[in-house]
Amino acid sequence: MVFWSSRRGARPELPRLRPRVAPTEVTKVDFTELVPEPVPFLGQAAYIQLEFFESLSTAVIGAPSMRSKEGLSAAAGVALRRHHELIAELRHLDVEPEAVMVPFAPATDRLGESTAGADWHELLLGVHVTSGMLDDYFSRLAAGLPTGLSTRVRGILAGGGIGEVLDAELRAAIAAEPGLADRLALWGRSIVGDTLLIARSALRASDSADRTAGDRVEPVFTELIAEHTRRMDALGLTA
Amino acid sequence: MVFWSSRRGARPELPRLRPRVAPTEVTKVDFTELVPEPVPFLGQAAYIQLEFFESLSTAVIGAPSMRSKEGLSAAAGVALRRHHELIAELRHLDVEPEAVMVPFAPATDRLGESTAGADWHELLLGVHVTSGMLDDYFSRLAAGLPTGLSTRVRGILAGGGIGEVLDAELRAAIAAEPGLADRLALWGRSIVGDTLLIARSALRASDSADRTAGDRVEPVFTELIAEHTRRMDALGLTA
Repeated sequence: MVFWSSRRGARPELPRLRPRVAPTEVTKVDFTELVPEPVPFLGQAAYIQLEFFESLSTAVIGAPSMRSKEGLSAAAGVALRRHHELIAELRHLDVEPEAVMVPFAPATDRLGESTAGADWHELLLGVHVTSGMLDDYFSRLAAGLPTGLSTRVRGILAGGGIGEVLDAELRAAIAAEPGLADRLALWGRSIVGDTLLIARSALRASDSADRTAGDRVEPVFTELIAEHTRRMDALGLTA
Repeated sequence: MVFWSSRRGARPELPRLRPRVAPTEVTKVDFTELVPEPVPFLGQAAYIQLEFFESLSTAVIGAPSMRSKEGLSAAAGVALRRHHELIAELRHLDVEPEAVMVPFAPATDRLGESTAGADWHELLLGVHVTSGMLDDYFSRLAAGLPTGLSTRVRGILAGGGIGEVLDAELRAAIAAEPGLADRLALWGRSIVGDTLLIARSALRASDSADRTAGDRVEPVFTELIAEHTRRMDALGLTA
């Protein structure tokens, strides 16, 4: 899956690596080495937040109590605010947000579908895992954007409001329902691969010349997985 | 349907009428004559906004274009903000919002279901008609709340952001799809009754002694219907 490239004609530029050391030398990957193109970066990040909003709204609709609805709707509000603020950054760059987001819709929609799960608890864990990994990832990747934009984007993606709510809901559900933990542990594990594909697509080149960019950021993905494991651990789930 | 009274034990107090003139005298109904109990008023209003949020989120998920998603998600954000601000007013009064909202859930959920329609266009018109009538209605009813609260609640419900978006979406859809106008005109007409039941429930007494309160506000409902007709006219639909 080459996600960063457009499916509808216009082909967004790919993130570039700054001049790098010889390939044989082992280097710690620094996110500031990566220079994402602002427009497709914002388009993909904005569309992903829209996806989180839609998933969280679905979670609100299916919530079993008013208290769950309140927390989850606040979380949906966070994703919605991020979506609209990222769209505003695109307008600030004088581009039409819709046209920029459309190429990212098919793969993001597929991620949403493949992580929606079979019931409300799996939906919640699906959003927890994907937003946990991708919000962190895009926030780090934003370090390579032009200074002013970089600060604003990291501000937009900063702060909690989603992970805490989902952690609390899932924790309560796991405590209340014997057997749920085992099922969710399996489910959480199955989501990681699809989520990493989306993360990778924001870096991967569509031709062989740039393919090493993907290879060189492997340690970053290792780190994303380690944080995923910490999130699962917090829920008492084996990642 | 006695909606104002609780279905789960605790029975909220009913709105009271200020001392009134003799029943035989014809009087223009003034909303400031009506004194809703703040707690159930806020609970019902907050839950109704949650219902609008859920319906608008469903409309976002089903939207056929990114542009529609942007407008509708902003509208969903308006309902969500109102919901959380009304909840904050309940906390300000030292009551637990969940307990106050729960009695209003069954009838409001039924309204949401009965106005969701058979497809995306009917869903949009369903929200347009119900939020058009009920936001206006609760805003007027808020005039009878204690001064500070009254001002804040009317501020929360004031301003646009929902009706304009739905009007624009429906207008474009009607222009693009021959035959849709006729179907939506019928649909819009069928929603009014259910919506008025909810409005009426915020006033109606549960015993015969107070039943005249409902009778005396008939002119208000006539006005709500007149505004509904104007909204339908704006879409080129016969109300």
